[in-house]
Order: sequence, then structure tokens, then C-alpha cells
Amino acid sequence: MSMESLIRRIQPLDQTAMAAAQARQDQLTKPQGSLGRLEALSIQLAGIVGQPRVSIAHKVIVVMAGDHGVVSEGVSAYPSEVTAQMVSNFVQGGAAISVLSRHIGARVVVVDMGVAADLSSHPQLYHCKVAPGTANIATGPAMSRTQAVASIEAGAQVIEKELAQGLDILAVGEMGIGNTTPAAAIAAAYTGQVPQQIVGRGTGINDRTLAVKIDAVQRALDVNQPDPADALDVLAKVGGFEIGGMAGAMLAAAAHRRPVVVDGFISSAAAMIATGLAPQIKDYMISAHRSREQGHKIVLDWLGLAPLLDLEMRLGEGTGAALAMSLAECSLKILNEMATFGQAGVAGKSEQDPTA
Amino acid sequence: MSMESLIRRIQPLDQTAMAAAQARQDQLTKPQGSLGRLEALSIQLAGIVGQPRVSIAHKVIVVMAGDHGVVSEGVSAYPSEVTAQMVSNFVQGGAAISVLSRHIGARVVVVDMGVAADLSSHPQLYHCKVAPGTANIATGPAMSRTQAVASIEAGAQVIEKELAQGLDILAVGEMGIGNTTPAAAIAAAYTGQVPQQIVGRGTGINDRTLAVKIDAVQRALDVNQPDPADALDVLAKVGGFEIGGMAGAMLAAAAHRRPVVVDGFISSAAAMIATGLAPQIKDYMISAHRSREQGHKIVLDWLGLAPLLDLEMRLGEGTGAALAMSLAECSLKILNEMATFGQAGVAGKSEQDPTA
Repeated sequence: MSMESLIRRIQPLDQTAMAAAQARQDQLTKPQGSLGRLEALSIQLAGIVGQPRVSIAHKVIVVMAGDHGVVSEGVSAYPSEVTAQMVSNFVQGGAAISVLSRHIGARVVVVDMGVAADLSSHPQLYHCKVAPGTANIATGPAMSRTQAVASIEAGAQVIEKELAQGLDILAVGEMGIGNTTPAAAIAAAYTGQVPQQIVGRGTGINDRTLAVKIDAVQRALDVNQPDPADALDVLAKVGGFEIGGMAGAMLAAAAHRRPVVVDGFISSAAAMIATGLAPQIKDYMISAHRSREQGHKIVLDWLGLAPLLDLEMRLGEGTGAALAMSLAECSLKILNEMATFGQAGVAGKSEQDPTA
Repeated sequence: MSMESLIRRIQPLDQTAMAAAQARQDQLTKPQGSLGRLEALSIQLAGIVGQPRVSIAHKVIVVMAGDHGVVSEGVSAYPSEVTAQMVSNFVQGGAAISVLSRHIGARVVVVDMGVAADLSSHPQLYHCKVAPGTANIATGPAMSRTQAVASIEAGAQVIEKELAQGLDILAVGEMGIGNTTPAAAIAAAYTGQVPQQIVGRGTGINDRTLAVKIDAVQRALDVNQPDPADALDVLAKVGGFEIGGMAGAMLAAAAHRRPVVVDGFISSAAAMIATGLAPQIKDYMISAHRSREQGHKIVLDWLGLAPLLDLEMRLGEGTGAALAMSLAECSLKILNEMATFGQAGVAGKSEQDPTA
């Protein structure tokens, strides 16, 4: 499906399903509202799927990988080769996201959106390489506008293929050495905040590298002048192939009424691109966690999303999203499996009206 | 084992095991520290168990139930009968903790510590009833000092029996209509804060009931004068049988080097009693979540525990602890199952020394 078709297909949440889910929550054997955000989450999920009682059989975590020309500026603590090495680690099951996905019972799907290495021998990957890494955003655009659309549509196609195998909830994560730099540039373009406020330490850079990174983001903004009213312009000028792929995956999931769990800083930058393209997609998003990456709070505030978790994580890969995906599943089991006051023979509130 | 024996048996954490766990964390294929609190949690668990690599096969959630004479003051939105009705709901699998324990693969153990109803026909309960509900703390002590010790030792015995069936991590939750009132009185006794700062809305009481509850807690403190230097005095004068049972369960778990996941406000009040008896137990505790109950933050600060989750929950039963227990298990799987840089052939940091 074309990007434009996906955007047109994203509908508002189903208010009838949400009202029915809320009514059931209020009959379950617990004080009303006492499960807090788990209750709100179950109601949002009902609205997304369009059914009062939602079940999750297939949880999918898509990890989009890409490299970044801006690494040549010296913005990262790790060399670009690590992107491809970590893709192998994902496929072999040794990465953090591999462990967490097994723990929660999710399927991990790894996508080469633009890794600067030949990964064609990996049979377990989606091969969607737009190009072997972006150009250096500190000196010019990351990619062409055509490549930006291609990355979005490739990400969407991955989801459409996965839907055929069963996909009830999507988590979006990434791997790409250097990709907190384009994510920071995207965040700066949308929020208007200066790079000093947004750029963080990524994988753990020292003060000198941090100064280099802030300078690289400022130059990326100066030389490219990304237009926040035009999401494709932002993606093309200061984005990344995996970021475009994630935005496309989000659009496709929402177009098919599937919830989207957004991971950390880079996933949230992709969520900004998706929101720029289709503002109504925000209702389909669940923010998994607040990353330690300094700019993440600014991005979440711009998106209007409240993170479920704050565990001081800053790894990416979808690791925070995996944990939150399990909470989403929990919230639905509560709605589906708990007894009502009537079923359990439990007395309701004896207190008089709250206004009394 | 007697209460005194349990207290004597609680040892400091194993620093050698913690150092080994930290060393392994630093070799795994992720930037050092990037899994934040999950890393710290795995290291704490290694220190508790006394092994560098810990596995969890048996997760146990113990739900202690008891009734409270102070309910006659009108402090709760629900009648005392609900305690026994909810015990039946736990046994039948229809409560929130039933659902969440199935989700995380934990065993739920329900204990009648002092329910004001005859539950002897329930074969799936531990029958440890000290008395059918406490006396009204607003007019005198909740229980005798002998009963306080009995409740602690009964709670500990439950854990010792469960250890024989396999118990690698313990979560402690409760059910007892009215029990945020004794929990608030315990919190006030230990922290010296006034009831207005600590007393919250429990199951969701209205303003009028809240005023009654604050007054009841103040009267409980005035009439009983609990001595914070004497944990048994605090428990006996303003506590509850399920609170004593939880404190005993915590002592027994720590005495056997098992981690203790503390649930919400009432569990944390029990943790205060346990800490009053054995200060070294704090290292064995994991605070699951910050409850919406107003006084919980004050209690957590006094305990020196940082909650893992903040999902605006206020149900009790161990529901927050169940979610945190799954995070604890996650943290150990990360440590056990992730590949090291060497194993995965992933390059390490190329950046110069952070002091450069």
C-alpha cells in the first residue's frame, strides 16, 4: 500500500468499543480505577482494535537497522561496524532484545533498512536496504526525498507481510550506530529546542564527543533547514533509513488498527515523523518508557505521550517496548479474565455518594 | 524458626557475587549501564542469593488477608465482608492478582491471617488466623504483643513451607478492608509525619470518609502511643494480622536469602515493621511500585527504596509486585542469556577514555 493510502486509512479510535471496555472495567472485582494506567491502557487498546474485548495472540517486535554517515564526524563511542555485528547478534538470539522478546513471548523481526555492510547472506532478515548508510547530515541531506518515501513504504511492507502471519500488537525498535544524532536533529526540527537541550550521551559518550555531537546536530540544522511542516523533508534531510522504516511500520500498524508500542528516543523521533505525516496516528501509540537520553522527555511532551516505564534504560533495540508490550498484554488479560462483582459474589461500595 | 532466630540469620548481601555479576554485565553486548535499573536489579539479586548467576524457577506471591476493627469507625468505602469474599475470589482465580500471577507464571498462596469470617472450608488456604479481625485501633491496641509475635511467626512458617516446594523470589501482597488505616498509623509512628500527610483515599473514599479516617489514625496514635523503637509495639498497637504476617514472610525469605518484592502502601508498612525488627533486611527488598496512596512516597523514602514502577495503581493484593517480579526475572535472564562482546564478535567502544 502506498504511503498516501496508509495515511488515509488511519481512523479515529472506536468510541463505542472504548465505552464498553470502560463499563466492564467498572464491574470488575476491584475499586474503580484502582489499576490505574493498566485500566486506561486496556481501554485505549479496545479503541484501537475496535472491539470491547481484545486478545493478543501474536506480539511482534520489529527492529530496524541502518547506518549513518554522520558517524564520520565522531559523534559515537562505537564504530559503524557494530550495527551489522549487532544485526547478527539479534539473529543469533544473543542481544538484549532477543532475551526480552523470549521472556514476553514475542516474535522479533529484524530489518536491514540501510546497514553499511552486505547482509544478504542472512536468511532471517528482511532485506530492505535503501542504501548502505545515509549521507553525512552535518554537511548535507541524509537521503533524497524519493529514498525517504522508499524507506517508509519498505517499513510498511514489512508490517503487511507480518500481519499475514499474525500481528496483534507491534513494538518498534532500532539499531544504528550514531542514530541518536539524526534523532536529536529531528527532535530539534520539530520542537524548535536548541541542540544543547536535546543532544544526549547516546551509548555513553564523553564530554568531548558530546560537544562534537551537539555541533554536528547544529550544522545539520543549519545546512539542511528541515521544514517541520513537511515530515518527508525532515526525514530526508536529517533522518535515517531505519527511522523512515519505523515511521512506515507505525503507519501500517495503525492503518490496520494495531497498537504501536514506541520504544525510546530514536523510536520516538520516528513517531514524530509518523505524526507529521498522519496526526491521527498518535492515538495508536503507546509510549513504552522514558529513556535516559536527555532529549526524550522533550520529544514525549511534543508527542503528548506519557511513558509507562522509567527504568533509566537507554539501549534501544525495542528493549523498553518489549517490557511495555507485556504490560499491554496484562491490561487486556485483566479486562478479559477478572471476575465481576456479580460473578464473584463480592459486595460493592457501601459508602454513600462521593458528593455526600 | 522463632522470630529471633530468623532475625539473627539475615546476612549482608554477598559482595563477591555482586562484583561477579557486575563484571558480567559489563561484558554483555550493550553499552555499559544501558539497561539501567534492570542491571542494578540483577546485581542486587546476585548479592541476595549469593551467586553470580541466579535463575528463577519458582515465583511465589503470598497474599495475606485480615480484617480490622477500625472499620467500625467508618474508614472504608467497602464493608468488612468483602475481605472474605475476595479471599474466595483469589482461590477461584477471578481477582486481579489471579490474572497477573498467571500472566507472569507465579504461584499464588493465600493466607487467612485474621479474617473476620469462618474460612475453614477453603482447602486451598493457609489457615493461620490469629483472631477474627483486630480490635479497633482508634480506641485501643489492635492486638496483644503475643498475638503480634504469633502473626509474624505464622507468616514466616508459610514461607518455610513454600520454600520446600520451591521459592526463588517472593512477592508480598494483602487483602483487608480498612487496612490502609493501620498502614497509615504505622507510617505515622515511624516517620513522625502527621496523619493529614499520610492518610489517603484507599479504595476511593469521599471527602467525608477521608476526614473520619484521618481522625481515626490520630486517635489511634494518641490512645496507643506506639513506640517506633519497638517494632512489636507498633505492630501490636496500630497494626494488623496480615501486616504482621507479611513482615514475618519478609523475615523468613531474607533469612533464606530469597529476594522480597514489596507491593504497595500496606506491604511497605509491613516492610517498616520488618525493618524495625531487622534493619539489614532492607537490602533484600525490591520496591515494586509507587502506589497512588498519598502516604506511600513518605514510606518509601523512610525505607530508602526506589520503586520500579509508577502506574498509578492502588489495588494491593500484590498486583504491583507481580509486575515487578517479572522485571526481576527479566533482569536475571539478561545476565544469564545475553551474549558477551567476545562471544558475539561485536566490537567494543572505540571512543577514547572518558577523561580525554
